[in-house]
Amino acid sequence: MKIGVIGLGYWGPNLVRNFLAQKEVKKVIACDLKESRLQNIKEKFPAAVLTNDCMDLINSDTDAIVIATPVDTHYFFGKKALEAGKHIWVEKPFTATSDEAEELIDIAESKNLKIFVDHTFIYNGAVRKMKELVDNNVLGNVIYFDSERINLGLFQRDVNVVWDLAPHDLSIMNHLLEKHKIKALSANGIANFNGKENLAHISVYFEDNCFAHFHVNWVSPVKIRRIIVGGDKKMLVYDDMENFEKIKVYDSGVEFPTTESIHQALVQYRIGDMFSPKINQTEALALGANEFIGAINENRPPLSGGKEGLEVVKILEACDLSISNMGKIVELDNLVLV
Amino acid sequence: MKIGVIGLGYWGPNLVRNFLAQKEVKKVIACDLKESRLQNIKEKFPAAVLTNDCMDLINSDTDAIVIATPVDTHYFFGKKALEAGKHIWVEKPFTATSDEAEELIDIAESKNLKIFVDHTFIYNGAVRKMKELVDNNVLGNVIYFDSERINLGLFQRDVNVVWDLAPHDLSIMNHLLEKHKIKALSANGIANFNGKENLAHISVYFEDNCFAHFHVNWVSPVKIRRIIVGGDKKMLVYDDMENFEKIKVYDSGVEFPTTESIHQALVQYRIGDMFSPKINQTEALALGANEFIGAINENRPPLSGGKEGLEVVKILEACDLSISNMGKIVELDNLVLV
Amino acid sequence: MKIGVIGLGYWGPNLVRNFLAQKEVKKVIACDLKESRLQNIKEKFPAAVLTNDCMDLINSDTDAIVIATPVDTHYFFGKKALEAGKHIWVEKPFTATSDEAEELIDIAESKNLKIFVDHTFIYNGAVRKMKELVDNNVLGNVIYFDSERINLGLFQRDVNVVWDLAPHDLSIMNHLLEKHKIKALSANGIANFNGKENLAHISVYFEDNCFAHFHVNWVSPVKIRRIIVGGDKKMLVYDDMENFEKIKVYDSGVEFPTTESIHQALVQYRIGDMFSPKINQTEALALGANEFIGAINENRPPLSGGKEGLEVVKILEACDLSISNMGKIVELDNLVLV
Amino acid sequence: MKIGVIGLGYWGPNLVRNFLAQKEVKKVIACDLKESRLQNIKEKFPAAVLTNDCMDLINSDTDAIVIATPVDTHYFFGKKALEAGKHIWVEKPFTATSDEAEELIDIAESKNLKIFVDHTFIYNGAVRKMKELVDNNVLGNVIYFDSERINLGLFQRDVNVVWDLAPHDLSIMNHLLEKHKIKALSANGIANFNGKENLAHISVYFEDNCFAHFHVNWVSPVKIRRIIVGGDKKMLVYDDMENFEKIKVYDSGVEFPTTESIHQALVQYRIGDMFSPKINQTEALALGANEFIGAINENRPPLSGGKEGLEVVKILEACDLSISNMGKIVELDNLVLV
Repeated sequence: MKIGVIGLGYWGPNLVRNFLAQKEVKKVIACDLKESRLQNIKEKFPAAVLTNDCMDLINSDTDAIVIATPVDTHYFFGKKALEAGKHIWVEKPFTATSDEAEELIDIAESKNLKIFVDHTFIYNGAVRKMKELVDNNVLGNVIYFDSERINLGLFQRDVNVVWDLAPHDLSIMNHLLEKHKIKALSANGIANFNGKENLAHISVYFEDNCFAHFHVNWVSPVKIRRIIVGGDKKMLVYDDMENFEKIKVYDSGVEFPTTESIHQALVQYRIGDMFSPKINQTEALALGANEFIGAINENRPPLSGGKEGLEVVKILEACDLSISNMGKIVELDNLVLV
Repeated sequence: MKIGVIGLGYWGPNLVRNFLAQKEVKKVIACDLKESRLQNIKEKFPAAVLTNDCMDLINSDTDAIVIATPVDTHYFFGKKALEAGKHIWVEKPFTATSDEAEELIDIAESKNLKIFVDHTFIYNGAVRKMKELVDNNVLGNVIYFDSERINLGLFQRDVNVVWDLAPHDLSIMNHLLEKHKIKALSANGIANFNGKENLAHISVYFEDNCFAHFHVNWVSPVKIRRIIVGGDKKMLVYDDMENFEKIKVYDSGVEFPTTESIHQALVQYRIGDMFSPKINQTEALALGANEFIGAINENRPPLSGGKEGLEVVKILEACDLSISNMGKIVELDNLVLV
Repeated sequence: MKIGVIGLGYWGPNLVRNFLAQKEVKKVIACDLKESRLQNIKEKFPAAVLTNDCMDLINSDTDAIVIATPVDTHYFFGKKALEAGKHIWVEKPFTATSDEAEELIDIAESKNLKIFVDHTFIYNGAVRKMKELVDNNVLGNVIYFDSERINLGLFQRDVNVVWDLAPHDLSIMNHLLEKHKIKALSANGIANFNGKENLAHISVYFEDNCFAHFHVNWVSPVKIRRIIVGGDKKMLVYDDMENFEKIKVYDSGVEFPTTESIHQALVQYRIGDMFSPKINQTEALALGANEFIGAINENRPPLSGGKEGLEVVKILEACDLSISNMGKIVELDNLVLV
Repeated sequence: MKIGVIGLGYWGPNLVRNFLAQKEVKKVIACDLKESRLQNIKEKFPAAVLTNDCMDLINSDTDAIVIATPVDTHYFFGKKALEAGKHIWVEKPFTATSDEAEELIDIAESKNLKIFVDHTFIYNGAVRKMKELVDNNVLGNVIYFDSERINLGLFQRDVNVVWDLAPHDLSIMNHLLEKHKIKALSANGIANFNGKENLAHISVYFEDNCFAHFHVNWVSPVKIRRIIVGGDKKMLVYDDMENFEKIKVYDSGVEFPTTESIHQALVQYRIGDMFSPKINQTEALALGANEFIGAINENRPPLSGGKEGLEVVKILEACDLSISNMGKIVELDNLVLV
């Protein structure tokens, strides 16, 4: 298999390294317009072939094109590559609009090509362990999902903090709570510096009584990367800043009322043991690359395909709409303010 | 000075103890309908006088009445006490509605009596240190306030999690950001168990570009009590779960754009030293009791008076209105959905 | 049962409170020479009877005498009380010398009276859980015990940091490792201020290959209260500064060599899950008081009796001897420098 | 300048990378007997020249030889390289015995060649900050140094835990406390598995009343990398497991006695502010390589030269001697049991 990688900025070198390490990949061609970035790849990964002509690469005999360019170019490169008959791997977020995403999905389906959206976190050992715990009903019925991803971050020119940081946590939520259907959302945020929001809060309502909230922030003095999943049997905390005990499962929860207590406090809580499972350390990106190749070879949708990418883009669009209306609720299905 | 204390449940004994310790207080009369609670006070604070007749206490020769009963009775006892010519101390939240709060304020003013609302946290050493840092412009212009108060909590019969927990953080916000005027708010939450919200998020918009957010939660497996105040010069974190370094001031922040960088990332960040000031350990309630007595003796409004109590109640009412409209924005001035 | 408590300084009021709360105790007489301390007890625990005449108390009709005075007076009061036919409870450390301890033990045995030494920690929920884990062989064979008890502490006039802090950890070690026999110890320390050691390290050798180490320190800027127990199956950490997860049991350890690996690294390690059991919150002192009364009523030795107190005093004496010889090894049996 | 690197195991590739990045270095020749290690360097650092003939490399036209082989071969390669007229860089610990170290120092001096011992930590940003704080007398007079370096570690075939881990902390201590002269030491440890100590404690006495202690451990379930430096003005904690606030300086300490308090507790403590300075993030190894090249070019001793390497080796030898005598004190000057 031959892989072309377009875009060698922050994340591109990791993609080159991981595809070079895949057994089935015989050749990786890396492409960027900037000479300094090509030089960097040459020094670090001498096995990679280099080019600065993206269109030439897309039309060469590669099997797949990996797109790691700014989000507003994903649609352009994705479409060209699909039209040239290549499978595509696209960095998150999938596209700049849901229309673009839908068009790419349609083209890929019509040509039986695969789209892989790089929601890296769902291949991460901690998230895979969380998925296992949710799917095995260890937590019971999930009643809420709470995510905080805040730190002093580099402001982006092209997107706000929601489009930059939230795709990670939204893809984790969608992956864990796939049985719960999202109904609508309300989002709030402010832009203090350059017109793009640097801090935002997103509340997601589900059709059952489940609820999710996301706090993303580029102007926090402390770095927090934390997800809580509250179930009616157990609850878990995933703290990505912990070096060792990243996931803790608490045998704590809410006790349901009995008729006797109905005139007193209606609901009680209990505190029990805590358990921190060992986390698999395999690099998420290696598993992602493997999943992409597997999906191509087995002619099946990948775990994070165009559909999953589109779902995240729809939520991001709804966030922008709600933020500009100061938290007004937006229906997810049709992106309409309620 | 003679003080009557009505309501000897969870917080009442602390009030009895603190008023007994005030130099100017000669007598504390403690009142509750439950015999077991009176017995408990008798054992722990033999110096207190006991009664189970509230109306008798209100009409006796006390100078002030302390009301530590459920919130929906604050108005009743407060009105009776003011009408009997007594100053009042009322537990947070001040009243169950803003109309009730306004009526009590009017009565007190007409009779030149003092109302003290027990926003205990503003007398806490860490919050006083934060106030000093904000007022001395150490943080620069405050751009956001973020509060998280979550743990596995006892469900209350009479109020939801917003009315139970948020008054603490709202009073801290109002105290620190008194120069910023609130415009409107948007709130979201769910009630999983007994019809009262057990988890909620509140976003507050100010007339300048300042922004605040509150996360209150009774169903979290971990206990978090954390406030971040982000300024354009420095930022601080108040972590009340820390045993020692409760406040950390970060010389970190956002660098403003220069014209040269305008075509690159527009805003940069910097990371500098951190400083953790020593916190005064005096019990907040002792300082609160002292402030109440001082306000009476000096015939001046206390730091946390009826006005401050009313502001918090208005925000709580707006939260309920917004939550039941899934985040729709509510104007604070007139409590109208926008 | 009637209990006399002598010494109402730092710890005495806790003793009065706990004995007052014991069902079988009908009367508590509290004694101190200082009027202010008697006054303090009068205010807080009006049910207690007060006296300033210790000898009178010892010779009155109490069943037991609780001795909470400075360590160099334990022998004097203990002997008088035993001679008057009273059971005794003595604060840690038991006595100022092992000779004193042995004499008190002999007197008590000859009169069939009970001695209880207040090694409070062995009644603490976390230590009881550790004992359960060790006794149930969850850890396997214990290979080492490591304790750190350091903070900025009040310097004592009468004893050094070893006599002040180490009895806690030594009693925990003796309790957990009762199957392992101590052989000898080596201790090092310095006295920077008033001639009494303010920082010390103690290494204890057992007859099997087990090993223990203690770090006690009054001049540390940070407060650490941590015990590690390393077994060949699992290892545990008890961190008393943690608010919630005080004990963590690690399924981590050392893999024993196979013949194949003998020419490579001889021993490997593995990392597995972690488990944090719920800890019982009952106040240790209440369980201690209960144990004392139970031992008297059932005519059996208490869990922490004269024998256990003597063992700790012998170790403390050996520490002093070794420290003054800069770490030279001291045999525990006969307190002789080797 | 041309640099030869012998030994491409765990640390060697970092050395190759850092010397390749030095401006003054024109060529790096990397040498190992194992083909797989040479292949690894070829892939990662294509600019490096490869060889499997060490003696040939030593005798070629390189200016300096970097020795990253097992410690018992340092003397052999070091001597050959010095005799061939090359400067040498030797990994820690410098040599297997102090006699070997002294002989290498003599040869180097006689030929005016430089020896650099890779005590990497003294080039680390946190340690350089600590050095600055000590040298600027921010801490006042240092009264103790306490180090803990424990985790679940790979057992080494050739050395015990003291020779493996303690050189880091001993070199930091010697660097920070260069004004204090070591007198003697006492060390204790056990070997549970393969005859080499897997856990040890080292107490170091200085000629003034300063004291140091080191805990090194391969069998701890938790990873701790912490140094406390206690001064009579301030105290600092260096916690290398912290992601951000690695150094904290506490304005806490011991208050000296006044005559009034002499009959009460003789010494008091105070708690003040805490300060965490920003740490320079430059890779320590890059600064080390720069120091080595600077020392050669300027014909001056490097910060961590043969003398500093010898001092650490002497302490390690004394530790072995004391451990095998169960803590008996050993004089540092002549390595004699006292």
